[in-house]
Order: sequence, then C-alpha cells, then structure tokens
Amino acid sequence: MDERIIGRIEKIVGKEGYSVKTADLYAYGFDASIFHSAPDIVVQPRTTEQVSEIMKIASEERIPVVPRGAGTGLCGSAVPIKGGIVLAMQRMNRVLRVSVEDLWVDVEAGCVYDDLNRELSKHGFFFPPSPGSAEACQVGGMVATNASGMRAVKYGATRDFVLGLTFVRADGEIVRAGTRTIKDSSGYQLARLMCGSEGTLGVITEITFKITTKPKKSASCLCGFDTVDAAGRCIAGIIARPLIPASCELLDSVSIEAVNKARGNPLPDCKAICIVEVDGETDEVIRRDLKIVEEVAGETGAVSVTPSFDSKEIARWTDARKSVMTSLSALKPGYSSVSLADDMGVPVSKVPDAVRAFQEIAARNRVTIATYGHASDGNLHTKMLIDPTDKDEWERGVKAVDEIFDVCIELGGTVTGEHGVGISKAPNYMKERESELSSIIAIKKAMDPLNILNPGKMEQWRGPILTRLRYPCKEFA
Amino acid sequence: MDERIIGRIEKIVGKEGYSVKTADLYAYGFDASIFHSAPDIVVQPRTTEQVSEIMKIASEERIPVVPRGAGTGLCGSAVPIKGGIVLAMQRMNRVLRVSVEDLWVDVEAGCVYDDLNRELSKHGFFFPPSPGSAEACQVGGMVATNASGMRAVKYGATRDFVLGLTFVRADGEIVRAGTRTIKDSSGYQLARLMCGSEGTLGVITEITFKITTKPKKSASCLCGFDTVDAAGRCIAGIIARPLIPASCELLDSVSIEAVNKARGNPLPDCKAICIVEVDGETDEVIRRDLKIVEEVAGETGAVSVTPSFDSKEIARWTDARKSVMTSLSALKPGYSSVSLADDMGVPVSKVPDAVRAFQEIAARNRVTIATYGHASDGNLHTKMLIDPTDKDEWERGVKAVDEIFDVCIELGGTVTGEHGVGISKAPNYMKERESELSSIIAIKKAMDPLNILNPGKMEQWRGPILTRLRYPCKEFA
Repeated sequence: MDERIIGRIEKIVGKEGYSVKTADLYAYGFDASIFHSAPDIVVQPRTTEQVSEIMKIASEERIPVVPRGAGTGLCGSAVPIKGGIVLAMQRMNRVLRVSVEDLWVDVEAGCVYDDLNRELSKHGFFFPPSPGSAEACQVGGMVATNASGMRAVKYGATRDFVLGLTFVRADGEIVRAGTRTIKDSSGYQLARLMCGSEGTLGVITEITFKITTKPKKSASCLCGFDTVDAAGRCIAGIIARPLIPASCELLDSVSIEAVNKARGNPLPDCKAICIVEVDGETDEVIRRDLKIVEEVAGETGAVSVTPSFDSKEIARWTDARKSVMTSLSALKPGYSSVSLADDMGVPVSKVPDAVRAFQEIAARNRVTIATYGHASDGNLHTKMLIDPTDKDEWERGVKAVDEIFDVCIELGGTVTGEHGVGISKAPNYMKERESELSSIIAIKKAMDPLNILNPGKMEQWRGPILTRLRYPCKEFA
Repeated sequence: MDERIIGRIEKIVGKEGYSVKTADLYAYGFDASIFHSAPDIVVQPRTTEQVSEIMKIASEERIPVVPRGAGTGLCGSAVPIKGGIVLAMQRMNRVLRVSVEDLWVDVEAGCVYDDLNRELSKHGFFFPPSPGSAEACQVGGMVATNASGMRAVKYGATRDFVLGLTFVRADGEIVRAGTRTIKDSSGYQLARLMCGSEGTLGVITEITFKITTKPKKSASCLCGFDTVDAAGRCIAGIIARPLIPASCELLDSVSIEAVNKARGNPLPDCKAICIVEVDGETDEVIRRDLKIVEEVAGETGAVSVTPSFDSKEIARWTDARKSVMTSLSALKPGYSSVSLADDMGVPVSKVPDAVRAFQEIAARNRVTIATYGHASDGNLHTKMLIDPTDKDEWERGVKAVDEIFDVCIELGGTVTGEHGVGISKAPNYMKERESELSSIIAIKKAMDPLNILNPGKMEQWRGPILTRLRYPCKEFA
C-alpha cells in the first residue's frame, strides 16, 4: 500500500492501530472458510469516528474495505478478495450499557458473544442466538451475517434482537439507525436491513440489542433412531403437538460415527440422533414438555429415549454434538472436513427428504457428507470430507454442493440459514434469490455507489468458487 | 381520471374491480387519521399479477399509487394526498396455507388480523402482535406500518414475524423476498425492509409469517396508584425482577376519568392504573408471576391491587382500556379526541418522566391529553381532546405535539412505536431520524425512481400537518 495512504491512516489510529507486516496481512487473509486473500493493510479502529475517517480516505482513494469480526464465518465474507483495508473490530469490544428495565444493551461491534452474555447473566438476562462459535465470534459479525444457532427456533435469530445500531456509510457519514425502544414503527427498518448485509452496505460499529429473561430450568432428551426419516418425523411431530423446543439437534449416521470414533463413543450407536432441549420457568413445565418429547419419540419409532435433568450428562451430549466438525477430520486419514456448503435451511417437515437426498448426492458424487444441525428450525449443516490436495475431489465436492442446493431450493428452503453468503454460497444465492436481485443491486448501488464496501461478494461474485483456496491444491490457488 | 386509463385498468380487474364513483372516491379519501384527500380511482385487485399490471400502467403514466389495508392507520399513511390510484387490498384476503410443522403461514395482504388468528388457533398457534384494531386491520397494513399492540413486549412486533413476502415494485416487477424457513442468513433482509415502509417501496401482496404456540394460561392484575410516577416505577420494577409480562397497560388520570364517566365506573377511582397480564404454560407459572406483580406493586406504593384469574373480569378491564379513545370524546360536549400525536415510544424507565412532561405540556398549551398505552414496552398513546372547529385549538394542539415529541426524542425515544409516520408524524420523524435521512432517501430513490409509490409521505412530507383536515375547520381544509 502507498506510503502516503498509510501515513494518513496512521494519523487516525496511531502506530499501534494498524499493520502492514507480511505476517499480519497473511493472517487477516483468512476466515474460517476455504479461501485466502491477503489485504494491503489491517486497521484496528477504537471508535466510530476513526472508522468514519478511514472510510473517507477509502472513498477518496477508491480502496476496498472489508469489516471483520472474529473471522469465524464459513463462507468467505471476511476474506478481502480485492485486497485493500481490513477493518478488524476487536478493539471496539466494550459492553457500553445494560439497561435492564428498558430491556436493551448497547455494545460495540467487536464484543465477543460469550462476553456479552456473561455481563447480561448478572442481571438474569441473555441475548439468545447462541452460535456455534460463541466463545470467539463478535456481535458485529453476528449482525452482519444475521447469525444464529441452536436456540433460534424458540428465540429467533440475531435480526430479531436488533433494535438499533450505528454504522458508517461508504462516504464516512455516521448513521444512527433504529431506536433504543422495544418497538419502532418509524419508517424504513435500516437497522434490520444491515442484518445479513455482510459489510457491503456500511461498517457496523455499535449495536443496541433487545435482551430477554433467561429461562430458569432446562432439560434434554437424547433420542436414537434407525433411520433419519424417523428422526425427522419425530421433530415435526414435536412441533405439531405444538411444542417449540429450546433446541433440537440432529446428527446423521456419518456424524455419529465420526464423533464416536474421535471421542470414545459418547453417543449411542444408531442411524440418527435427536437431542431435544426444553426450557421454562418451573420443573413442572419442563417435566411436562420432556414427557411430550418422549411420547412423540416413542410414537415415531425411537430405538432409544434418554431424558436427562443432569447438567453434566447434557453437557457431554452438547460437546459431542459440537465436536462433529472436528471429529469428521479424524474419520479418514489425509482427509479434511471443508466448508463448501455447510449451511442450508429447509422447511422443518422436509428435513427427512433433505437428509435422504444429501446422502444420495454424496454417494453419487463419491464424497463423504455428514449432515447435522438445528433440525427444529430446518437448519442443516453438511460438512464434506475430502482430500484437499485432490483437484478431482474438490470438483466432485462442488458438484455435490450444487446438487444439494438445488434440492434445498426445490424443497422451499434457503442456501443459508445462519452462515451468510460471502463467496462460497454466492452462485446458489443468486439462483435462490433471482427475484430479489434487481432490488438488491439497486440498494447496494444506492448505499455504496463507488462499490468499496466488501466488493465482489454475494450478488457481485462472478466465476467459480474453487479459487483462492487456502488448501494445498495448486489448480485452485 | 382519463377514460383511456380507466379502460386499461378495467381490462385488468374487470368492471367490479374498480370504482370512480364520487361516493367511493370520497370514502377512500379517509383513513383513521385527521386527513382527507380523495383518489382518482379505487382499484380492488384479486391477484399479485393484477397488482403488477396496475403498477406497469402507473409507471408508464406517472400516476401515484397508494396501497391500502383497512384504513385503520392514525397517521394518514393511506390517504392519497396526491390523488391517483388507491389499491384497496380487501379482496386478497385468503389464508393460503398454514404449515404447522414448519411454523409458518402464507396469507394474502388483505386478510384481517383476527381472521388469521381464528384460523391459526385451530392448530394451537397464533400470530401475536395484537393491534388495537385487530377486528378490522389487515395484515398487509400491519407489515407496511410494522404494527404491534399490547403483546409486543413479550412477543415482538410484526417485523419479528415476517419470514418472507411477495411485493410488487414500482415498475411492476413481482419480487418474492425472504424465505419460508425459520432462519435466513442470505443477504439483504428485503422482507424486513418492507416492514414500516408504508407503501413507499412496493405493494405487499402476500406474506409468510412465522407463527408461535399460544400460551395455555393467563391471568391479570389491576393495580391502582396515587401518582403516575408510582405506576411507572411499578412497571420498571416488574421488568427488573426480571419478569416480562404478556402485556402491561397504563392509564393516566384523564383516561380513567373518561372511561369511568362514559362506561359507568368500571375502573377504581385513582390517579393511575396498570393492568398487568402474565401468561404461561401452567397455573403454577402464572400464579408465581402474578405474585411477583403483586409484590412489586406493593413495594412501589399501589393503593389497590386486584389479581384475577376470572376471564370475564379481565375482559371488562380490557374493554375499559380499549374504550379510552372513544370514551374521551364523550368527556366534554362539542370536543373530539383527535389523532394528532397519539403514538410514541420511550425507554420503559422513562415512562413516568414522559407522562409527567405530557401533563405539563397539556396544561401549558391548554389542551386535554389522555396518556395511556403499552407501558412495559414504553409505547404510549396521547390522545388529545379538542374542539375541532376551533383553529386556535388545533394550533395549540400541534404546538403541544411538537413539545411532546421533543421530550420523547430527548428521553431516547421514538415518535412512533406502532402507528407509523404518514403525514402527522412526518416533521418529527425527520427530526428524530436526521442521521438516517440520506440513506432513507437513497433507498427510496433506488426502489421507486419515478416516485409514484405513496408519494409525499414520511421523509417527503413538506409543510405543516394542519392541512386537508377532515374536520369542519375551514382554515385547514
């Protein structure tokens, strides 16, 4: 990067507020996706005003800017494919104010999700979305990708908690959008529009989240099945009762095998597992709800039903579930679990159809796919196991991915339920959202006419997704 | 309207699908606001495709189009101030599909809120926002104004339930936005952007709402206070416990007096009342929560505390609360309760400050203001009682309104919590949202470059709000 521009940036954030060292640029070229592309400079702002000043320079000099949280995203949203400035938000990590009576919290974008909840739990409140990367991910990134996790079926995704936020436009203008009131019927919901925009409409610097009371009791039930179909019927049956569980995690046979092999058999040996969590205000409520889960599991042919109030046992199940991604890499020597297409949403009633179709697609394309996820909201993860040095495997993987997404769209689903679009979902996102594209393009142009905010992502991605891979496969470097 | 254009419209919707009769045009010049302005034609489409064809004509001919639900809005959002076409959606009133396992319902924009909930209740589900106009208002209008009501503090506003929707752009393009999945992290939240856009970005024709399970039990507690301050402290105290009630309605002394006079004293004679509703899954839960309400009411100096599990008694309280608006008109002969500024949101902890300030403003400007509303989410209604033939009263009323909104903005609130912006809130909306205006204007231009969708409203309103009044005050006709 031009010394003159570096000098201007240094004036804003000081010497300790940026880096152009090769090692730093290399590190900030990654997120948790399959891609790598280094920026020209990493800037760590401390205030919204600093972000505004940086954006003014970027506008004047036409430099791409990629805002970045913890880089836990799996689709490449935070990889600076056009170089330029990475705005790494981790120094803006304060919980600014918890207003318990007013049911909101003001927090800086770089605050880690778990840190925020630790603060809120002191007051008996929480911010529920519960992403898998809870210990690391930052709330700004959660808003930018409309992240969620296990508890979304009952409590909603990040978008449902954003009352207001501060963002910096491409031209440096600081915008305070939304309110600090629970309701807000005043015109365009700009704060909600920023949810899922992945840094392409503005840089989010502060957020006002609605908070809610933490349920006092919870319990879980682990149900094993002979077929993934039966597991799917069980989940749909629970909701149709109607009972909305706090969470409901599905694991298919590949996931179970991988976890049991890597972790010393924490799970029963069967073809599909549902771990259903219920929560509520009293023991009576959760006992009643757990009873319903057991009944429905029985009616839908569960081969094992294990209710539990023991937090240690439940934690073991949760750990097992959370270890699928890493366990999978240990399943086959030389193979890695890669994030090619590991997040889709289908209507809950279509979960069995989807999982069955994914298994067929995996077999046909000779790749190993583990399907697991938050089944009660229809959100599935399909982690693929491939030899990352093998061009042919990658290509078969992408073919399988395209087929998987075709199935999801056909079933009335979406190509991403909680991870965003970035690069790896872009082609199928454009297919799914064809009807929205003209509006999406118009809004992007209105908000970022010079196209400097995270350019080339989502609807702007052109070309194949096998490119700039961070894996040792020279054909797709 | 030009016969040629009428002929083109008739070809689309048939003879029974439109009217240019003077009586109809007069009727469709109203909504529940203070304004009146007749359209040139009223069109009642039956399908999204018909709406699309109408929009193509409107684009070609540069005719303003105002989409309209039941016209229960209080800010003038549905009044066609530039004439043109009113698109009245009542013939598109079908519940298209209830997908219980998938937790959503597909419904046409013209479906009445209560009709939708009657259908959902068959399955044990509901769509919670609960606006005051529930028996008449249409769900499309609810989305367009991001409407809500008593239950928003616990369950959220309309925006929190919109998974996807179909809308027609200004140029006639039909857009399906969002998904039919509970979660959706795919790019811009266009469906959420439409919430609160009041017909200025597109014509909403179908909506996919998330639905949720109906709580099995509920109970209420009526608490009377000597001061509105004590009532406010009680509400903040309940939430800080923490306990989020299903609803919590506040009435000030003017509201209580009006209701007691008009309805034969259904309420205790005191200076402020809170009616707190709790709901849950079992009797044990609601008894425990009601106990908390009673405790906090006692601690904050309630002069009467009446818990009730009797649905008839609770219905009487609810009816009394719902009658404030009409009761007020009976308080003073020759006076009417008018919707000048009857919806604002403040942080819950600021409710006592707000109500006190409103009473001072009313006294200073010599107008009668009743303050009541959904206090646990900080949403207040200030209904004004004035002689509608008196120019001076109207002017003092508007002055009071401006002062009220200044207080709200100063307290960190918003000029509208659940009724929208339209005309009557426009000047103060622009004041509150100054920071958002450049983005709002850019998005409006991107989505409606010819400015034919509900033009002249919200950020486009210029001039005073005392204009085109439907009241017999010739100075403001």
